Amino acid sequence: MADDITKAVVLLSGGLDSATVLAIARGEGFQCYALSFDYGQRHRVELTAAKHVAEAGGAIEHRILTLPIGELGGSALTDTSIDVPDASEPSGGDIPVTYVPARNTIFLSMALGLAEIIGARDIFIGANAVDYSGYPDCRPEFISAFERLANLATREGIEGDGFRIRAPLIEMSKADIIRTGAGLGVDYSLTVSCYKPSSDGKACGICDSCRLRARGFEMANISDPTAYQKTA
Amino acid sequence: MADDITKAVVLLSGGLDSATVLAIARGEGFQCYALSFDYGQRHRVELTAAKHVAEAGGAIEHRILTLPIGELGGSALTDTSIDVPDASEPSGGDIPVTYVPARNTIFLSMALGLAEIIGARDIFIGANAVDYSGYPDCRPEFISAFERLANLATREGIEGDGFRIRAPLIEMSKADIIRTGAGLGVDYSLTVSCYKPSSDGKACGICDSCRLRARGFEMANISDPTAYQKTA
Repeated sequence: MADDITKAVVLLSGGLDSATVLAIARGEGFQCYALSFDYGQRHRVELTAAKHVAEAGGAIEHRILTLPIGELGGSALTDTSIDVPDASEPSGGDIPVTYVPARNTIFLSMALGLAEIIGARDIFIGANAVDYSGYPDCRPEFISAFERLANLATREGIEGDGFRIRAPLIEMSKADIIRTGAGLGVDYSLTVSCYKPSSDGKACGICDSCRLRARGFEMANISDPTAYQKTA
Repeated sequence: MADDITKAVVLLSGGLDSATVLAIARGEGFQCYALSFDYGQRHRVELTAAKHVAEAGGAIEHRILTLPIGELGGSALTDTSIDVPDASEPSGGDIPVTYVPARNTIFLSMALGLAEIIGARDIFIGANAVDYSGYPDCRPEFISAFERLANLATREGIEGDGFRIRAPLIEMSKADIIRTGAGLGVDYSLTVSCYKPSSDGKACGICDSCRLRARGFEMANISDPTAYQKTA
């Protein structure tokens, strides 16, 4: 079973953070099973980006599973009746409208099912609590609670060595993440962070996520390879 | 917001247990949003049963969401390359091959997303730790851990009163469940428990789940309304 120990499931969104996580997992010697979700997100170009990131990042497999999260409604990222705000607009609360209810819980649950089946013990997620935009399911206490749950919920958790939920970016600034990834050879031109990208994958440059990303490259003193839309 | 407090999400499989749970939730005065999943289960007649149970049980809504759990593989309930054993066959371990990895974690995650969106605080699940066939995600400690996770994972958990994961059957015997449901008027002829039902919904009478069910009616001293296949 020694071979199995080196397998990991890596949640891959097509964004900057999860591309970095894939590089970190590969750097630790894991065979990486990348997992992405088509969940009715508006920014579907993410999935194309995820495919390219998985290939470039040396994942040995990349699955895209369709989840009906968008059918539940309630988020600006999946519900077209809610506008995605620009960073300059006040959000009116600590948790923004781009929050997708229970998203990371659902994603980690699916990753857990896959991990148990393929014999992986490590599940990597690009959650980040520093530049986290107020999402409750990106905090360290959420990650710990999910790990605890995983080891009560599964055959492996009860009979085996158990699962580890790995969130290596959780305490990093965006600049730290970019420096780390650049050091591991991540090609960030393949990644998409924008909440409102054009159909050919160009970033708007003005949404919350774009601003965080641009500032991260600036702070890391690394040139920003992002393709931006022309803005007025 | 007082009206919202009376909403509940009820996970409905089409089986005996969740039909009873729906009746219990209705008996407590909840407006019930029933939620079922099409996850590639072999026993798809469950979904037809769930529809009938939701209607008869007074759910104000019934959603069936498609989940790609079967694509993960690994269980006799979703993977046609694994045989569903009869109750008489030794399972070779404490956890049977009918175990679907992370199933209740995934189901509860989706229920949590729905609950947050519709403003429900109570999520009902028919998990049972007595006649539970060895599934790790049917134990009280799993339910508690999920409730804790839910209240760390969500806006409502952090900013509001939080969620309750309700598993009212968890300590009941099958006979207790049947007595409770019969007292609340549940029509058990609508429910399907069998792991290997015929295409018209008749039970095999010999799988683990059929045996547990038949014994339950016997112990409850209530006549068994189940339609069984003719067996040799």
